[in-house]
Amino acid sequence: MYFRPGAHQQAGLAFSPLKAIISPRPIGWISSRGQDGSLNLAPYSYFNAISEFPPMVIFSSAPGSGLPHKDSLRNVIETKEFVVNIVSSALGDAMNVSSAALPYGTNEFEAAGLEMADCHAVSVPRVANAPAALECHLWKTVELPKPDDMEPTIMVIGTVVGIHIDDAVVVDGKVDITRYQPLARLGYMDYARVTEVFEMPRPTVK
Amino acid sequence: MYFRPGAHQQAGLAFSPLKAIISPRPIGWISSRGQDGSLNLAPYSYFNAISEFPPMVIFSSAPGSGLPHKDSLRNVIETKEFVVNIVSSALGDAMNVSSAALPYGTNEFEAAGLEMADCHAVSVPRVANAPAALECHLWKTVELPKPDDMEPTIMVIGTVVGIHIDDAVVVDGKVDITRYQPLARLGYMDYARVTEVFEMPRPTVK
Repeated sequence: MYFRPGAHQQAGLAFSPLKAIISPRPIGWISSRGQDGSLNLAPYSYFNAISEFPPMVIFSSAPGSGLPHKDSLRNVIETKEFVVNIVSSALGDAMNVSSAALPYGTNEFEAAGLEMADCHAVSVPRVANAPAALECHLWKTVELPKPDDMEPTIMVIGTVVGIHIDDAVVVDGKVDITRYQPLARLGYMDYARVTEVFEMPRPTVK
Repeated sequence: MYFRPGAHQQAGLAFSPLKAIISPRPIGWISSRGQDGSLNLAPYSYFNAISEFPPMVIFSSAPGSGLPHKDSLRNVIETKEFVVNIVSSALGDAMNVSSAALPYGTNEFEAAGLEMADCHAVSVPRVANAPAALECHLWKTVELPKPDDMEPTIMVIGTVVGIHIDDAVVVDGKVDITRYQPLARLGYMDYARVTEVFEMPRPTVK
């Protein structure tokens, strides 16, 4: 089938298939601190690395259907710092609790029963039990084209300035993700966990 | 363990762990056409959706260690169009063949033995056997901070203008990704395939 964006129902699809098609998406579980000191923690799957030299990441804050931007965006713009926490399978329920639209100022670490740990290069706490966490400085935000009837989506671009890794997931000098089985976001209400890995070396040019 | 980017060896890690930590990454298998008509197909895992309204995607072209930017970037800047093809498990080997650094003008569709199919809103062909493909218009490019000794990484931002889905992967009005088991990129030379899916409904606010 072929259709233009927004015309999925005419094509016989109940929901927009975009998030199912672009999957599995890694989850950036973003912790942030507002100017008033309040803390926030929320998962984003419009998230990825975009550069290795220097190491940079993006996450994108979509307004959804009339909802205000997530508090993370407000905090990151205010204090120019955030932390990307990685979601192991064991932390899946806590991640999901933190995705609820709670009032500004609510500390999702507490709401989800999570322990915080201090960072080194940023004043934002990380999820103590996350298998890895990336301390980030805001580089810039990019405002995406605005639809008529809603707020624009804002893409946050950050530079990684510090890397935490749980020693228990390092095997022979490499991060073994099967030790924590990261969650990934799919379409609809679906998730996957990575339990198995296979190698495929780059082909050599003949 | 904790370390600053670039200091992973002092921390006892053989390779940079960033791509392992930010995983699984979806693969955007980007087809493009140059001003001279030459076609290109190459996989990118610095790739994701960033917005649903309007539907937008990014992919990021990193220069690597002294390598020139991939030809996709040159083509997209020249003709302002590209297609994101989705990589099923069955297409994994062909995707890997297309990742080799072939000379400019080499048609990776042919090199990988892939059939092309026409698109509707762009002049770029898609991978005929891909489970889904997204026709895209270039919105803008963003040049990331440049390290001293190499070219800057360029992030491409595009708007989805047409959506192809193989009818065989649609079940009850939804895209069932277990029908094609998408490949995802991990760290090092590692990949995963999504074979199982589970639901986790968003929590309701109390």
